[in-house]
Amino acid sequence: MSETAERIVLAARPPQGIARLDTWRLERGAIPTPGPGEMLLRTLWLSLDPYMRNRIKDEPSYTAPIPIGGIMEGDAISEVVSSNNPEFAPGDILFGRTGWQSHFVPKGEKLRRVDKNALPLSVYLGVAGMPGVTGYAGLLEIGKPQPGETVVVGAASGAVGATVGQVARIKGARAVGIAGGPEKCRYVREELGFDECVDHRSPTFAANLAKACPKGIDVYFEGIGGPVFEAVLPLMNTFARMPMCGIISVYTPGQPAPTLSVPALMGTMITKRITIKGFLYRDYASIEERAVKDITQWISEGKLKYRETVIEGLANAPEGLLKLLRGDHIGKVVVRVAQ
Amino acid sequence: MSETAERIVLAARPPQGIARLDTWRLERGAIPTPGPGEMLLRTLWLSLDPYMRNRIKDEPSYTAPIPIGGIMEGDAISEVVSSNNPEFAPGDILFGRTGWQSHFVPKGEKLRRVDKNALPLSVYLGVAGMPGVTGYAGLLEIGKPQPGETVVVGAASGAVGATVGQVARIKGARAVGIAGGPEKCRYVREELGFDECVDHRSPTFAANLAKACPKGIDVYFEGIGGPVFEAVLPLMNTFARMPMCGIISVYTPGQPAPTLSVPALMGTMITKRITIKGFLYRDYASIEERAVKDITQWISEGKLKYRETVIEGLANAPEGLLKLLRGDHIGKVVVRVAQ
Repeated sequence: MSETAERIVLAARPPQGIARLDTWRLERGAIPTPGPGEMLLRTLWLSLDPYMRNRIKDEPSYTAPIPIGGIMEGDAISEVVSSNNPEFAPGDILFGRTGWQSHFVPKGEKLRRVDKNALPLSVYLGVAGMPGVTGYAGLLEIGKPQPGETVVVGAASGAVGATVGQVARIKGARAVGIAGGPEKCRYVREELGFDECVDHRSPTFAANLAKACPKGIDVYFEGIGGPVFEAVLPLMNTFARMPMCGIISVYTPGQPAPTLSVPALMGTMITKRITIKGFLYRDYASIEERAVKDITQWISEGKLKYRETVIEGLANAPEGLLKLLRGDHIGKVVVRVAQ
Repeated sequence: MSETAERIVLAARPPQGIARLDTWRLERGAIPTPGPGEMLLRTLWLSLDPYMRNRIKDEPSYTAPIPIGGIMEGDAISEVVSSNNPEFAPGDILFGRTGWQSHFVPKGEKLRRVDKNALPLSVYLGVAGMPGVTGYAGLLEIGKPQPGETVVVGAASGAVGATVGQVARIKGARAVGIAGGPEKCRYVREELGFDECVDHRSPTFAANLAKACPKGIDVYFEGIGGPVFEAVLPLMNTFARMPMCGIISVYTPGQPAPTLSVPALMGTMITKRITIKGFLYRDYASIEERAVKDITQWISEGKLKYRETVIEGLANAPEGLLKLLRGDHIGKVVVRVAQ
């Protein structure tokens, strides 16, 4: 345990929405002391996720942006250090959206105990956490893949996409991933066991995707947007479903202008009777317990694989997030804040 | 009954997709004679519908276009004149997609008997037919309005829209129509009993729509597209549903270019967790019987009102369709082919 508490706050709104290292500032202070009924937690693992890009912009979204000087938001796994709260004991491991800080006294944040013996703790931030449950819920509750159908998932090497494709295969569907670059595609095919993976950086991407989906696409799990979606849409089958939970290309400015228009999209959606449904992880709180149970089971059976990129130390979280937003990683990105 | 059979065929593909009177040609011939097991039908009522615009273009859609020289497609109500088919007797009234012709011997078309005593026959082409069932199915199976929610419907004075709004009110929701011009808006409010109707031709349309929907929009039944949709989208509530079954502004070229982009649409759909589902009438064949039963009941109780624009004579069907596509009508447009 470090002698001082560290936290990372938002120092400035990034110009043109492109985050830089000076977007954040590391602050140090005394480790807080819990009052009556309170407890002290120390963060063990911090999750880095694409949605964070949206939290630092000053634009309305599904939640208010983080204020300047405010602690960066993020899901974390923490350990109870000392407790005046009869519900929690030292050594308990908790999950919550407790932010980029090393030590803290929670003030009403929603915290839930995780089973420290079932899985490595960082996995509760990945395939057994928000990204995994997002993929599980979007695929099974909206996509509803049937055996033999083709499921395509963008950002297939990320924690959400990896879960979507592997769960699709567990349910008897064919999984085709889309990822950026040959290394990620190899990982998706060889380690995660997708049937195919197509590199969206290839100049023949659209043709390659069509070849990888000879029976068309029944479920497209959308998390990329932009040119990838424009290649997917013509391949979609009648009654295709498209769960949509985050558009990376919307997060980052400078993407190529779309050539698909809204009327053209709508015309295709009617012709093919396509369903597109936006959703967020939090909409599926009611199935989270079942999702984590299934995912834990599949991990233990070797049916659900994952990889992590570990950033060492809270101070390196900003650099880790910038890397993630550039796509310079494979699998779930986590920060090891403490051992 | 006329001495000769008349039929209207497609004479040419309309230039730039804009239909003109010379798009069609009236042909006359002998009234056919039914062979063994066959029957002769005469058409009483023919339905004119916006989807027909798509059938005459040479572009892939959910069905192949009508060939040059082919009989124009259309739903019709016909009467059995003579029958060598033991299942049907002279005087039976049948519904089927039997096209723009006065007399014919059906060759395997799907025909279904309608109850000639329950409703005026033309209504089986309107609120108790394809448009009404389309509105009923899209609203109840996809839109799923809850009591107190706000349902907005485009093209509210048409047969689909009129059904959507009135069924929404029957289910306890608030119905706000969108229509073109003060006369149609008056009809929608005063005759159909919608809570509000907003004129999309007004320069303050977007502001008027916002005022008519103080609690936002929970269900938007889409059938217009273009600028109307762009005014609707910002008003949509979290978890809003949008059944979408035909975009008139896509059918007719020359509409203003959309300002909404696909990435912006998708961003909003995620933020607000909106569902958009394309559908066609035929997808809901399994609920058609229940729909027609409910609709007939509501008509008899005075809860579901409708108006018809009647075109006299098969020869005037092309002009009627052009009027319909220009929006120069109120309610369902039908052609009286014979008494």
